[in-house]
Amino acid sequence: MIYADFNGSAPICPEVKDYLIKRLEEGPFANPNAIHYLGAKTLMGMEKARKICGEILGADKTQVIFNSGATEGISTIFHSFLHPAQVKGRTKIIISGIEHSAIHNTANSYIERGFSVHILKTHPNGIVDIEELESLIAHEAQNIAMVAVMAANNETGIIQPFEEISTLCKKNNIKYFCDTTQYFGKIEFNFSESSLDYAVLSGHKIGALPGTGIMLAKDPNSIIPLIIGGGQENNLRGGTQNYIGNETLAVALTAFSEKKEKLETINSKRVEFENKIKELHPEVVIIGQNSARLAGTTYIAYPGIHGQAVQIELESQNIFVTTSSACSDNAPVTSRVLKSLGVSDEVGRAVVRITLSCCSPLENYDKILDALDRSYNRLKKIQGY
Amino acid sequence: MIYADFNGSAPICPEVKDYLIKRLEEGPFANPNAIHYLGAKTLMGMEKARKICGEILGADKTQVIFNSGATEGISTIFHSFLHPAQVKGRTKIIISGIEHSAIHNTANSYIERGFSVHILKTHPNGIVDIEELESLIAHEAQNIAMVAVMAANNETGIIQPFEEISTLCKKNNIKYFCDTTQYFGKIEFNFSESSLDYAVLSGHKIGALPGTGIMLAKDPNSIIPLIIGGGQENNLRGGTQNYIGNETLAVALTAFSEKKEKLETINSKRVEFENKIKELHPEVVIIGQNSARLAGTTYIAYPGIHGQAVQIELESQNIFVTTSSACSDNAPVTSRVLKSLGVSDEVGRAVVRITLSCCSPLENYDKILDALDRSYNRLKKIQGY
Repeated sequence: MIYADFNGSAPICPEVKDYLIKRLEEGPFANPNAIHYLGAKTLMGMEKARKICGEILGADKTQVIFNSGATEGISTIFHSFLHPAQVKGRTKIIISGIEHSAIHNTANSYIERGFSVHILKTHPNGIVDIEELESLIAHEAQNIAMVAVMAANNETGIIQPFEEISTLCKKNNIKYFCDTTQYFGKIEFNFSESSLDYAVLSGHKIGALPGTGIMLAKDPNSIIPLIIGGGQENNLRGGTQNYIGNETLAVALTAFSEKKEKLETINSKRVEFENKIKELHPEVVIIGQNSARLAGTTYIAYPGIHGQAVQIELESQNIFVTTSSACSDNAPVTSRVLKSLGVSDEVGRAVVRITLSCCSPLENYDKILDALDRSYNRLKKIQGY
Repeated sequence: MIYADFNGSAPICPEVKDYLIKRLEEGPFANPNAIHYLGAKTLMGMEKARKICGEILGADKTQVIFNSGATEGISTIFHSFLHPAQVKGRTKIIISGIEHSAIHNTANSYIERGFSVHILKTHPNGIVDIEELESLIAHEAQNIAMVAVMAANNETGIIQPFEEISTLCKKNNIKYFCDTTQYFGKIEFNFSESSLDYAVLSGHKIGALPGTGIMLAKDPNSIIPLIIGGGQENNLRGGTQNYIGNETLAVALTAFSEKKEKLETINSKRVEFENKIKELHPEVVIIGQNSARLAGTTYIAYPGIHGQAVQIELESQNIFVTTSSACSDNAPVTSRVLKSLGVSDEVGRAVVRITLSCCSPLENYDKILDALDRSYNRLKKIQGY
């Protein structure tokens, strides 16, 4: 079996699996806030995990806030930025057209609270139009409540100029949030070296347990908690902590940090794979082919051959890919992200997303190449090319 | 080792442990929203879990919304009830003085949004004063935005007249939320037979993985999502679902439903234990001794002997109890809950909370009795009785 849907979700990584089996056998299991020894031991394990996560992500442990995943992080940061006490009459939310639906839907949920949502254009190369943002800031900086442009797109893998946007927003005293969900575990990143003030991470994207996550905040006191509880996570995120899940985040991040030099090899192999498939099928379109992308993301279309047909063909050869994002509507239409890039419906309906990670065996690309070639040839015949 | 902090957190139950070890070996691991077979299989497993949870809790599967735990459920229900579109100018939030700090702090967080919080009195028997609520409703029903009174208190285990409060609120068209966090797994409950419209559950309180939970809603469309994502959980709770965690909820609830007849035995054994310790130490106070309580909860004080000293003594005998709730401030003062009951500081500083579950061996009560007797005798000497 070849799993090629790492942008959708990473399987539990072997290190996490081994850790969990041992962890379940040994315990302890207790409320990490309890005053007894079992509670204290549970807390110590979780705090050790927080320290490890911080070290790998380039953050102080006080900047690591455990939560249930990136979507919760996103909702929390919008809640913090747009809180009546913070927003001071500003009403415009600026997001890009290629944001994940979590950002899109969260921004839109504030319309009934009196905000408006402006969608930034995207260049055909898949990169958000910074000049449009600059122009908006020049004209109405005082009314911009926040800007959200992601670090790397989940469908295309195209990396956005987030450091530039961050600097631009800082210069103009505008709150900026960068959705880093697809970035972590797929590229080198150091929070303290980045100009970003916030970042979000989902455990299920990096091989940890699902339902786990981290929100990073340079100034944790700027967070207004969305889930309010009994003072956990320094009063920033209520609810008895998911201590086992949080430990798996440390294990998965450690495993990543030990394998991350493989990212470059995966990246070269991915470029080679894309070139080869284009040699075999010159009609093929690689979305964002000339843009900087995450190491293992290929978003590929054979115009006229339906993406879902290709996905099913590949599945019959035991290769698991998706058409667009897991969260997108499964309806066979061009995704919102691709529409933002000005991609035609002929291409938009034809895409499949092939995403590997630094844990994937390199030969997977050879096997996918063969299978994709066979699938295209077979489907071309059926569709009467 | 005797674990006697089930109200704080239940250890992962053996059935969940066995399930997880097998589950981790076998997979599948995928985004349950992905269109490929692995995604569909993951989704099927999770939906089977939802159905099982619904059946055991007495809810239709469409009424079962998976989340990260009861605290998230509480924040979501406050968010739904107090949303500008729902609240229609009403400004008063009524909660009881014995609510968990998650309710307390969440209610208070709405003060800066223009709401006021009224705290209902509690009778010395630990039961919330319904007459005060009736009087408030008689005088200003039109201004009450919501009422929150819990099902059973986490410290005392005292069961509240929530069906009566629910009926009273319904009659007056007032939104009522009952925090059921401590109720599930400790007493029989059927959502469809209850008049409650909402309920919340934490996985870590019933032996499932921490970081898991369920929100039940009779009318799911009345929920306004707090965490907004890509349409998961019928657009009611965003974020890639914690499919493994959600499966453990079904396993833990199944284990509970097979053991729940043991609750009655635990209850009788608990009463016997309380009577025996009072025979040995007539000075002892059992909080809410004559009130209906959860089967395995004893909140006991030897006036003048510090609770934390007793807890440490018991811990030295490998018995793990707490003083008040895990979430309470560890400061050695009378808890807010006990102050609501009018408990004196002499008693309030002396309490320890001993909480067992239907999974606990019955002889644990005999062992705790011996250890507690020894501890009291020893501490009495030290403290110069």
